Amino acid sequence: MLVKMKIKVNEDLQKEREKCTFNIEELTHFLDGGADKTFSRRKLESFFLSDLNLKDEIPMEYLSHKERYEAAVRKSCILFKKVNEWQENDDSGSNSMDIYKSLLGGSVGYAIIKDGSPFAVHYVMFIPTIMGQGTLEQQGEWVGRAFSNQIIGTYAQTELGHGTFIRGLETMCTYDPATEEFVLNSPTLTSYKWWPGGLGHTCNYAVVIAQLYTQGKCHGIHPFIVQLRDEETWEPMPGIKIGEIGSKLGMNSTNNGYLAFDNVRIPRMNMLMKNAQVLKDGTYKKSVNDKLTYGTMIFVRVLIVRDLVSSYISKAAIIATRYSSVRRQSELKPGAGEPQILDYQTQQYKIFPAIAISLAYKFAATWLWNVYNDVTSKLEEGDLERLPELHAMACCLKAVSTADAAVAVTTCRLACGGHGYMNCSNFPNMYAMASATETYEGENTVLLLQTARYLMKACQDAKSGLKLTETISYLNNFKSLRRNNWSTDLDCIYNAFLQVAGGKIENCYFSINTLINSGMSQEDAWNETSIKLSKATEAHCRAFVIQSFITTVKTLNLSSELIKILTVLCKLVCVHWMLNQLGDFLQYSNLKPTDVPSIQSLLEECLKQIRPNAVGLVDSFDVRDEILGSALGVYDGNVYERLIEDANKSPLNQEPVNESFHKYLKPYLKSNL
Amino acid sequence: MLVKMKIKVNEDLQKEREKCTFNIEELTHFLDGGADKTFSRRKLESFFLSDLNLKDEIPMEYLSHKERYEAAVRKSCILFKKVNEWQENDDSGSNSMDIYKSLLGGSVGYAIIKDGSPFAVHYVMFIPTIMGQGTLEQQGEWVGRAFSNQIIGTYAQTELGHGTFIRGLETMCTYDPATEEFVLNSPTLTSYKWWPGGLGHTCNYAVVIAQLYTQGKCHGIHPFIVQLRDEETWEPMPGIKIGEIGSKLGMNSTNNGYLAFDNVRIPRMNMLMKNAQVLKDGTYKKSVNDKLTYGTMIFVRVLIVRDLVSSYISKAAIIATRYSSVRRQSELKPGAGEPQILDYQTQQYKIFPAIAISLAYKFAATWLWNVYNDVTSKLEEGDLERLPELHAMACCLKAVSTADAAVAVTTCRLACGGHGYMNCSNFPNMYAMASATETYEGENTVLLLQTARYLMKACQDAKSGLKLTETISYLNNFKSLRRNNWSTDLDCIYNAFLQVAGGKIENCYFSINTLINSGMSQEDAWNETSIKLSKATEAHCRAFVIQSFITTVKTLNLSSELIKILTVLCKLVCVHWMLNQLGDFLQYSNLKPTDVPSIQSLLEECLKQIRPNAVGLVDSFDVRDEILGSALGVYDGNVYERLIEDANKSPLNQEPVNESFHKYLKPYLKSNL
Repeated sequence: MLVKMKIKVNEDLQKEREKCTFNIEELTHFLDGGADKTFSRRKLESFFLSDLNLKDEIPMEYLSHKERYEAAVRKSCILFKKVNEWQENDDSGSNSMDIYKSLLGGSVGYAIIKDGSPFAVHYVMFIPTIMGQGTLEQQGEWVGRAFSNQIIGTYAQTELGHGTFIRGLETMCTYDPATEEFVLNSPTLTSYKWWPGGLGHTCNYAVVIAQLYTQGKCHGIHPFIVQLRDEETWEPMPGIKIGEIGSKLGMNSTNNGYLAFDNVRIPRMNMLMKNAQVLKDGTYKKSVNDKLTYGTMIFVRVLIVRDLVSSYISKAAIIATRYSSVRRQSELKPGAGEPQILDYQTQQYKIFPAIAISLAYKFAATWLWNVYNDVTSKLEEGDLERLPELHAMACCLKAVSTADAAVAVTTCRLACGGHGYMNCSNFPNMYAMASATETYEGENTVLLLQTARYLMKACQDAKSGLKLTETISYLNNFKSLRRNNWSTDLDCIYNAFLQVAGGKIENCYFSINTLINSGMSQEDAWNETSIKLSKATEAHCRAFVIQSFITTVKTLNLSSELIKILTVLCKLVCVHWMLNQLGDFLQYSNLKPTDVPSIQSLLEECLKQIRPNAVGLVDSFDVRDEILGSALGVYDGNVYERLIEDANKSPLNQEPVNESFHKYLKPYLKSNL
Repeated sequence: MLVKMKIKVNEDLQKEREKCTFNIEELTHFLDGGADKTFSRRKLESFFLSDLNLKDEIPMEYLSHKERYEAAVRKSCILFKKVNEWQENDDSGSNSMDIYKSLLGGSVGYAIIKDGSPFAVHYVMFIPTIMGQGTLEQQGEWVGRAFSNQIIGTYAQTELGHGTFIRGLETMCTYDPATEEFVLNSPTLTSYKWWPGGLGHTCNYAVVIAQLYTQGKCHGIHPFIVQLRDEETWEPMPGIKIGEIGSKLGMNSTNNGYLAFDNVRIPRMNMLMKNAQVLKDGTYKKSVNDKLTYGTMIFVRVLIVRDLVSSYISKAAIIATRYSSVRRQSELKPGAGEPQILDYQTQQYKIFPAIAISLAYKFAATWLWNVYNDVTSKLEEGDLERLPELHAMACCLKAVSTADAAVAVTTCRLACGGHGYMNCSNFPNMYAMASATETYEGENTVLLLQTARYLMKACQDAKSGLKLTETISYLNNFKSLRRNNWSTDLDCIYNAFLQVAGGKIENCYFSINTLINSGMSQEDAWNETSIKLSKATEAHCRAFVIQSFITTVKTLNLSSELIKILTVLCKLVCVHWMLNQLGDFLQYSNLKPTDVPSIQSLLEECLKQIRPNAVGLVDSFDVRDEILGSALGVYDGNVYERLIEDANKSPLNQEPVNESFHKYLKPYLKSNL
């Protein structure tokens, strides 16, 4: 039956594919970074996703919380072994660390363990922290064992009472020179470690961030390696209280845990001492350069933008586009039959922006990734010049793109009506994953305000005639752009984004100074301007994303058909964002109220031009059905068949009468006779 | 321990309560509709919520899909019996139907069965449909048995392939005069009934909506009563294929089902014949008045606005406000300690609008409920005059308010950071419930466009000098308002909303006519204007909600302190919505770009004024901890204690080492040594 279904593609979807005006494979290769990359990606996907041992018998949504976790551990162990197998036959030279990371945090990993791997933090944070902050000796002792999975670790920073404000962490680590040990304690309920992935029952080691006390003085937070569980019995070590934090909106296999210490002793050498040290006698030696640990923090944010945002948005767009090509409903014209719902303008307006912004963030992430690599390589040479700019752009891109991702997934889900509400559509799980990125690794509002600090400083620098960095240099000239006449070409639109960003940044700068001049403290003035500051940062970020899209399209070496459709998508991002913040454009840019109809018309025109290429575009994202994981988004378009098939996987459907009838319902009904 | 915790209220929260400038109980009574109503509500809540048999041993999030359903059936049966018990002692004269409905669809019901009762449709749709569309004879046969729960029914309309477009339903019901029976068939896969609540395994009867065929002719859709399961064995009746549709984003106890027919025969008298009839010989007799069934459709939408929207938004606001009073983080001023996060302007901006709009929709819903009752009573006298206006307002209020509810719940969740992502915060479940209302009982975009038809007709009427109904009468004078100078008093702001709504409606009207005049068909012109039409409807709806809030505040017989704070909340709704759609106001109203700072200042001023009353306001909503169901929102503010307590309810935390260690992890780790 499965084979038969794969052969017959839904007619409507087939016709859509025939309409496409560009070469789908050309776009796929471009998005992968080359035909060879496409080839090796497909090979890897096929190797892991064809393994029947890694497939679920029962979809995870039907399992209990505990069963889900156990299934995730089972599959993770199989997956790890398979990585070795893969490497023995792989000739691309990628190392297993990269493959673990991409499998656990990437699309293939999520196809196998849908709601997050309990081992992800081991690869993404435990090993990198030891490598980044341990001495060579410490690396020698720990990295090999961690890398070959003899021990499994997590990264325990966040506490019940502190997330954003890490200086406020309460876990205490006090040096005892008598035994040359550190003593860990959790002095309050709010000092319990809370949230680390895999901490609950999966890991036996952790890097613990704690306030270091030695010679009667607190030296702030430092990282320590702590054994949590016995290697043989897996029982918690003495003095350690540990468990999982409970069920969540999503990511329920990640086994996020809590952890408290009662006089837990660890050897002095378990403090990661690459940067700061505690000598045998308890003398504290300061870090030479604090900023060296700064890069790691940015790294995860860069990964979120690069690997997660674009992937969630594009998957949502694929599902909604294909479903809307297959679904027919209502009548546009009496007697003309029911149209594909993709023909409704309101439907296009929900879905096509998602196609466009998935590309926009992909291009912006490429810039971010390149700058990240450039900056960190210079960091090691002691050159910190571009670090603040990288930090500012990573913060705002992470915040704006993850918020947009959550909205795009939701909008696409709603575009699929009731069927989008079903777990077999995969929208609910994607939403849970996407929305989590709005909070973890820096809460979005906090991050926007971090970037705002950079912008206010830049504004001050501009006033003082100092040189500005590339991404904010428009502060020098945005006002002059206002003299231009309005037109809907991309350069003019981009200039309007600059005017808005510049105008809003300057407005905040003046507001803060006015409040300070009226006698308010700087801190209160900042707080009283913070709504405006977060919106100014958002405007700055969107201007950047538009610029990166335009630059990418302009410098592409692609066929003219492809450049044409990419240009339309770029314009769609522009007008979509303009119409969402039209007030800003009317206040700060050269757009006049009489020009607004031209923006609305451009929006409608873009939707029309994308319509015949919509299915081709989402096909070019080349996401396998197993990765998409959606009854509504299947490549062959046999949507209704899949819905029934998936319904029949429900354990409730394995028996015609549920036992609750005999136990509860029948006695009750009879009592009413 | 529990008792101790209840006694000690968190200090910060206690201080907040002492700051409140108005009488909390006064607001509670007002919101309930009188002190006596508050008294009887509390009595009912206490009666049902204190029953230990109705509490969960293990929170539902930890159960498997099947276990959740079984728990819901168990608790429902207890609940039903308890209703009888309540009635024997109740002297308020409410009938059991009302109590069932309010328990199953209301706050108390959701406190007991968090993700939806499988019996709700029995009360909300099965019984009302028979009462509304059955003859007296049919009512005599069915209503008594249904009412005393000897049979349990559902309402099967939506099919796999058709939701919005009910004329497109495919289920066939063909009359056979030889046996005086109807024969039901599901001719295609897409004709499977899909979605009815309780259909999966809970009901043994259904009202089935099917295309009626008699004497070789199709007469469109009609309702039929069909027995689905044997009363003794609960096995599906011959020819009936039935099951549940599978797991969803939420509402997983509602047991939504699918249903297909293979030559299922039912007696002729099982067609509900109050309006249309099929005689013994197969003669079809048309309905005298189609519009009489129209009211029922509107009813559920009115209930959504009245009972669900305001409840979801206010609960989200309570949780976020209390948590933000207890939570302290970061530093506003060096050395001043960590402030309550409610002191951050950005945090207030996320939460206070939710407090305000929960009231706004409550007041709008009161209007809608009154008009609904007025119109339906006149309907029975044959007076249909206000029906189109009621329909238009019910459609747009349902669409706009449910979309706002989903956003408000999400914004409040995100305001609680990582802890808001936990199921014990209750945000995830509330979101699932709230977002479902965006789709069910009329997909929101479809509903907005229904209202748009009314608005375009009104615009035509205005041009023709015909009289306009109350809610749209501003079309006659909105333009003259533009001559006024801007000020931030409520009347001026309301006038701006009218100008925007009127301007956008007229703009759509002209756009459609321009397209038609250029040769486009009316239907295509409609589709090409539909993005603008849906936004014009939204503007119309928001203007109405503002008006209803202003009117309510103006006509209140309340203390001046209370009126003062309600006025601030009303202004907050206004400026919040204005800033969200600022472009519209700059285009269509008398607001000028130079006036925008006054709006932003008013927003900031409102937040400041609400700050000391925030906890008092949410306390006045008077939602019991059991109904709130949130570790973050508890009345006593002992948030961190509850988080740990709830974590320790996880089945994974009942044993120190999970068996997956022995089964999978240990063998794997050892293999790496």
